[in-house]
Amino acid sequence: MPDPAAMTAAVHAYVAALNAGDLDGIVALYADDASVEDPVGSKPLVGIEAIRAFYARSTAIALQVTLDGEVRVAGNECAFPFSVSFVHEGRRTTIRPIDTFRFDEAVRIVQMRAFFGPGNIYPE
Amino acid sequence: MPDPAAMTAAVHAYVAALNAGDLDGIVALYADDASVEDPVGSKPLVGIEAIRAFYARSTAIALQVTLDGEVRVAGNECAFPFSVSFVHEGRRTTIRPIDTFRFDEAVRIVQMRAFFGPGNIYPE
Repeated sequence: MPDPAAMTAAVHAYVAALNAGDLDGIVALYADDASVEDPVGSKPLVGIEAIRAFYARSTAIALQVTLDGEVRVAGNECAFPFSVSFVHEGRRTTIRPIDTFRFDEAVRIVQMRAFFGPGNIYPE
Repeated sequence: MPDPAAMTAAVHAYVAALNAGDLDGIVALYADDASVEDPVGSKPLVGIEAIRAFYARSTAIALQVTLDGEVRVAGNECAFPFSVSFVHEGRRTTIRPIDTFRFDEAVRIVQMRAFFGPGNIYPE
């Protein structure tokens, strides 16, 4: 079982990398065969190249990301609430998801799922 | 796909039933063949009788349950942060999980997973 402190640290590294627009830093947190389901209910992206392309679109604009509560670690998984705010076509939008990560023994993310819907999107 | 408002209402009904110690009310939110993994990483309980027995233990003591943020609905699933506080052996303890629910078409819970660990348990 990966160390709970290391899993929590991975979440903080993820938030920091999103804020820095550090695409390599984000991708380095993922295992090569990881999957990303963002939002939950969409077809999961599988594999590090698809994941890189996904985050390349995210980091093409400046994101302000903040944790909105403590990281919940359970087994080899965790969940955390956060806000992501950005300006698109001159208008600021904030989204408040809860993400879950599942980790491998090396504390790389093997599965990410992002829970949010229209009710969690706040245009200014 | 179940209606997002109905899924959100199910979460509020769940919180209200926990606060009321309403075992029948809790169990009525679940499908007969549902599973409960509480905490994540433990062996899931499967089936409504196992789920009733699980919540009978929970509702044997008075619980104070409050949502700590908005419900995130995505596809036929949702996630929500909350606090549950209770007195055990004379000492108040608060736990801050994030739960995820997956719903069927009738907006019954078919899967519940509770994300929390030792870092989310606060003895007074």
